[in-house]
Parts: sequence; structure tokens; C-alpha cells
Amino acid sequence: MICEILSVGTELLMGQIANTDAQYISSRLSEFGISVYRQVTVGDNPQRVKEALNTALSRSDLVITTGGLGPTEDDLTKEMVAEYFGLPMELHQPSLDALTERIRRYHPGRPVTENNLKQAYFPKGAVIMKNSCGTAPGCIVERDGKAVAVLPGPPREMRAMFEGELTAYLEKISDVRIHSRFLKIFGVGESNVESILQDLFHLENPTLALYCGTNEVQARMSVQLPKGEDPGRVFDPVEREIRRRLGDAVYAVGRGETIESTVFRLLRDRKKTVVFAESCTGGLLASMLIENAGASDVLRESYVTYGEETKVRILGVRQRTVDTVGVVSTECAAEMAEGARRISGADYAVSVTGVAGPDGGTPENPVGTVYVGVADERGTCVKRFCFLGDRDRSWVRNLAAAAAFNMLRLRILGREIEGAQECAKG
Amino acid sequence: MICEILSVGTELLMGQIANTDAQYISSRLSEFGISVYRQVTVGDNPQRVKEALNTALSRSDLVITTGGLGPTEDDLTKEMVAEYFGLPMELHQPSLDALTERIRRYHPGRPVTENNLKQAYFPKGAVIMKNSCGTAPGCIVERDGKAVAVLPGPPREMRAMFEGELTAYLEKISDVRIHSRFLKIFGVGESNVESILQDLFHLENPTLALYCGTNEVQARMSVQLPKGEDPGRVFDPVEREIRRRLGDAVYAVGRGETIESTVFRLLRDRKKTVVFAESCTGGLLASMLIENAGASDVLRESYVTYGEETKVRILGVRQRTVDTVGVVSTECAAEMAEGARRISGADYAVSVTGVAGPDGGTPENPVGTVYVGVADERGTCVKRFCFLGDRDRSWVRNLAAAAAFNMLRLRILGREIEGAQECAKG
Repeated sequence: MICEILSVGTELLMGQIANTDAQYISSRLSEFGISVYRQVTVGDNPQRVKEALNTALSRSDLVITTGGLGPTEDDLTKEMVAEYFGLPMELHQPSLDALTERIRRYHPGRPVTENNLKQAYFPKGAVIMKNSCGTAPGCIVERDGKAVAVLPGPPREMRAMFEGELTAYLEKISDVRIHSRFLKIFGVGESNVESILQDLFHLENPTLALYCGTNEVQARMSVQLPKGEDPGRVFDPVEREIRRRLGDAVYAVGRGETIESTVFRLLRDRKKTVVFAESCTGGLLASMLIENAGASDVLRESYVTYGEETKVRILGVRQRTVDTVGVVSTECAAEMAEGARRISGADYAVSVTGVAGPDGGTPENPVGTVYVGVADERGTCVKRFCFLGDRDRSWVRNLAAAAAFNMLRLRILGREIEGAQECAKG
Repeated sequence: MICEILSVGTELLMGQIANTDAQYISSRLSEFGISVYRQVTVGDNPQRVKEALNTALSRSDLVITTGGLGPTEDDLTKEMVAEYFGLPMELHQPSLDALTERIRRYHPGRPVTENNLKQAYFPKGAVIMKNSCGTAPGCIVERDGKAVAVLPGPPREMRAMFEGELTAYLEKISDVRIHSRFLKIFGVGESNVESILQDLFHLENPTLALYCGTNEVQARMSVQLPKGEDPGRVFDPVEREIRRRLGDAVYAVGRGETIESTVFRLLRDRKKTVVFAESCTGGLLASMLIENAGASDVLRESYVTYGEETKVRILGVRQRTVDTVGVVSTECAAEMAEGARRISGADYAVSVTGVAGPDGGTPENPVGTVYVGVADERGTCVKRFCFLGDRDRSWVRNLAAAAAFNMLRLRILGREIEGAQECAKG
């Protein structure tokens, strides 16, 4: 089945917003085995909306539109669909009732205008889709072997409608499902992962593809199956093989998983706590961990020691360390972690000290140099990272934070951390 | 002048990435008074690329393509442009030299393949645009009153090329400029701003439009002027009028300004320091401030006191406060700020304590309730915020952080903070 996505909205053509609707819809359609051949965007212009809709319907089985469902005269997606199929527009009373109720609740005293009324009219025979987050319902029109699904433009409204009634419709009309499973990989570069898994890229059931993020790689397995079949038997053996080859570098399964959510779960499941001593990341580690609901089980307190003197005063870093090797050093990272663990009583302490830039680099420690320390009951280890590249402060800080979480993950799992130095307790 | 943007890339049609290139290009073109009527995306399919290019050129003066410049057989945007205009492909020696040098530097030992060679071929007579961030140069082909600009797909490469040689070209072919000035507004809701500025929306020089973000409003003034004319005389009087009406709610001028960068500059210019005592924001405030280069001038240390007991132990909140009114209270916020200021010696201390959810809400303090305290030499004030709405933890934390920065901003400026309670020093 061939689908075309038609986005209507002058704000898209002005570049005021990115067309995330088209991405979302394309991604979801691929899961139903529906191919998107074209995404087309036009403004709120009757002539161009009409022409784009005609062209799209002439070459596709299914057209999904977003936008142009508002109350103003400009908004005419539904009207153009009705015109294409030669259908009259009809009032849908339940939509008008819902709209009236919504206006009464959120804008008491405001009258229901002629324009609002427009939002309750649909091509005759259309299946109406409720809008749980806004005033504009959508609809599906099927005729002459073609179908058009009309969705609102605001992403929250569009997604809710897609996941509800439109998904039910797609489940009905599509016989296949394309399933995907994502393995999240940290600490091995894309080209290394590629050569380690090389022969697996020739598989057909499932297919395997890599996606490279800023600081991690995702391996995606995909398989097309008849509706109702479980993809586990296809994915499981390949996942086992990938894990056998990549070992601990595979940190989670699932597209939405992150290195910090993985660490959060590891700590919570083991009833362990952590404290951070952050210099250049400056609260980023704590903030990322606390993003997880239930974070109070694993983090009680955390320290940002950005100034040199604060590392000594708050964390007990030795003045001699600061004076001799400086704060961007293995020694300082170790003492920061040990100090934070001591004052907090946490099971694990993670320290980060480095040069995020743009200034502050030296020949020994150029911008992008970061030391991460992890202290626990077994002792303290420190690893030096170099995030070089002509990038900004934010890039260095984010890479440092992810690397720190990964070191903590490996330490919790009791693994050797490659390239890390074990430090004698200070 | 009418432009069409043609994006080539199967990854866009699969929904793997959003088409941020089209947004970026549209937004920049609008500044040259060039109208984008359509954005079209097709996959790496010769037939559909060709057909889309033909259609685009038949109805536009300028077509800008992105993607399809890679070394593989799939990549054929340039070839299709050559075919459209009936031009042969020719080797561009400087591009080949640059490519060879790039491969030598980044992939020593790897040969320059037949496929790489392809990236140095262009339609005869094309103006070549260097790629400072990747291997694929772009080009501009002008013929028969039409022009096609061919850009790479990866956003960093595309943007660098756009800002360099393509911008120079657009400056040459366009006689007008559309200038914009953004006023950033905090603490007044969109509909309030709308009614306060109501009559100004009828202006034509400049036009005025509002954009609503998660927690702030932007007012954009725009004006079209002949090349070389200064928009200041058009913008200045309207900016003055907006500031007269909205007062301190206007916190900055400039699209890229943020509430935290504004606070950072205020502190640095006054040579003042700040410390945070964060509970539910958990390091977010510190992290946002430290994102600014030079942050060590204004922040030395900062505290995340997430657990109840840590507020007492680290910040000196009174046990009695915790036991009687609890940690989500005016008293606790005040004592947290005062404690952080006392132990750090900073000029300003900002505390945040609240319920980010999804659990922990009570009838008095439902999820989304946040107390922000600011302490300075004049005393301490606390304001209670309610970020209600069916949203997630991240949403509450981000709104709380922005609100805290805004309170600090007003306090630094010596303004009254509406709805805040002045607390006696603990």
C-alpha cells in the first residue's frame, strides 16, 4: 500500500516549525508495512491545497493530511477532500456538541461562532475521529478504492488522534506488521560495531541496521510478519548473538532507553545510592538522574563544585593536589569522588572534572579533556576522556555526562573499566 | 521569487529523522523575501527524484535540493539536475583534490574509490560550493531563467554551505531583505500579551506576531526593506512601545536569548555570584547556568538536596520546619535559600522545592506545586507556583527552573516580585 503525506500550513513553509508530524506519521506507517513515497507541504492556499490533494490521490492508495482544520476561512483541508470526491459537507452533531462543551469549559462566556461551527462539518459519509486535545476533529473518507485521513496539525492533537482511531483503522486495513527491536550500545564506535557485526547485516529475517547518535549506537532489528505473529522467535537468537559479540557494550533493549535510565534501574534494583561531585558537567548528572520518577530512592544529595576552592572546602580535595597537579587531573577526580562518598554516605560517588571550553585548555589538557572518577566500597577508579572536535561546550558536557553514567554502570555490574586507573584511597 | 524545496532521502520517508533542513532553508529564504510554496520529500529513487525535480522546476524560479550527494549509486540528485538541463557531468579537479586530502587525513590508508570520484563530478557549468564539514560539495546550476541549488543532506554540512556560498548567491539575486527582531517575554501569558498589544497587530511596518513557547512568549517584529537599509528606525519605536506596556516582562531582545543566559549576564556584569539549593529541579538550575561560557565568574558551588534529611544536614533547614509544615512549603524554601547563601557566601541564593510527580502530590500541594525562594542581602522572598496540567515530570521541572531564573532576574533588578512573600530571616 502506497501512502502520501500532505501537510498543510504556512507556518511550515515559513520555517517557523519543523514538520515533526510528517516524521511521526511516516515512522508509524512503516510499522504497518505501508510505504510512504512522498511527503508534500503546501501553505493555507486553496489552489495549492487542491492541486496537491489531487496529485496525491492520483498516485497513492492512502493520503494522510495534517493541518488546515482550524476555525478560520484559510482552513479548508476537509472542504477540498469533499470537493475531490464530489461529496457535500454535512453537520456532525456530536462534534458540535463536544465543541460547544469544550468552549463552555475552557472559555466561559465566549459564544460559539459561525467559524467554530465550521469545525463540526465533514464530507458526507466520513468516519469522524474525536480530538481529545483540541477543538478540531479529524475524519477518514473512503471512496473509489482510495482513502484520505484528515488530521489536525498541532503535534499533540495529531498524535493522540493517530494513536487512537487512526491506528484502529490501519490495523484493520493492513495485514502485516513490521516489528522492530532496538539494542542500545555504548562505548564502541559506529565503525567498530559495524565491523564486529558485519556478517549480520546480510540477514533478511530480521534485517539489521545501525543508527549513530551523538554518543551511542543503536542496532535495529526489523522483521515483517503477518498480523498477530510474535516477533520474539525472530529477534531473540539475533539479539543473543549480538550480545555475545558486543558484551557489556549493549546496555539496554528499547528505543526509549537511555544510559541514565539504565543506571537508575540498576541502582534501584540493588537498593544502592549515588552522589555526584560535578565540576564541568555542573549539575547535569544529578539532573539527568532525577528526571527518573522515584529518583529519591537512589539519590539523596549531590554537589556542584565548580570553583577550585570549593573542591577543597566542600569535598576535602587536598590543597596539595590542587597546587601540584591541578583540578583537571586523575588525583583531583579521585579525591572529589572519595570526598563526596564520605560526606554523603552514598554507596557510589561519581566525580567529573574537565575543560568544557571554549577557554581553559592547556597543552596537556586541551578543551574536551574530562576526568571521571567512581568511588565505591572497593576503591576508586578514574578514567581520562578526550572529547575533541570542533564542537561547543554543551557537546563536551553531554558526552562527559554519558561517559560518567556508563562508567558507573560498568562499576555497578562489577566489570573492568577499560583504560581506567585504579587509585589508592586518599 | 518562488522557491521549492526538494528533500531527497529514504530516511525522511521512513520517519527516522525530521526534515529540519527544510525548516532551516525555509526560514532563511523568508529573510530574503523569497517565497516557498512547496516542500517536497522523495526517497532515493531515480524515477521519483526526476519527476519531483521536473515538477518543481516547472513551477518555481529556484529549487533547492538537499540530500542524495553521497558516494553510493542511490545518490543521484546532481545527475538528475544535469539530465533536466541536458548538461553533461564533468570532473571538478579542486573537489577531487579536497576529497582525496580529506580521506587521507581522516581515513589514512583507505583508497579513493570509484564511488568517491562520483562526488567530484558536477553538471557542466555549475558553480561549485565547498563542503567544509563533509565529503560532498554542492553546486548551483543556472539556466533558462531557472536556478537549482544542490545541498548535502546532513544538517551540519547543509547549514555551513547555506551560510557560506549559498547566502552570498542569495544576497546577489535578491533585492530585498526581511528583517526580524524578537522580544522575549516571561511571566505574562499569551492571551494577556495579545490583549495588551492588541492594536499593534494592525501595524504594517513592522508587522507584529506572537509565538508561544512552553513557558514564554516571543513577539516578532518583521519588516521588508530594500537591500542595505537599516531596520532600526522601524523597530526601535515599536520596541519602546512594547516595553512601555509590558515593562519587566520583556527580558531580552534576540531569538537565541534565554532566561538563564540573561541572568548569567546580569550577574556577571554586576560581579555577583549565585548558589542554588535544588530539590525537585535536582541540578537543572546549576546545569543551565553552567552552560554559559564563563560561568565560573558567577557560580562557585551548588547543592542538590533531594532527600528530606539532606535539607537539614547540608543547608541547615530546621528539623521543626520539616516536621510541622514539611519540605514543600514557604518556610522550607526560605530556609534552604538562606542556608545555601550562608554556607557558600554567594550574593544570591535560589532554592526550589516542590512536587514534580508523578507521585508525591497531596490535596494542599498537588503534583506541579513548586516553591521558589530567593535570598540576598535584603532578605528572603518565596513564591508558590502551580504548574498544573496533565504533563510529565520533565515539564514541571523545566517550568520550575525557568520561573526560578525569572524570580532571580527580577530580584537582581530590584523589582517587586508579584505574588511573592517576604520572609523574616530564619
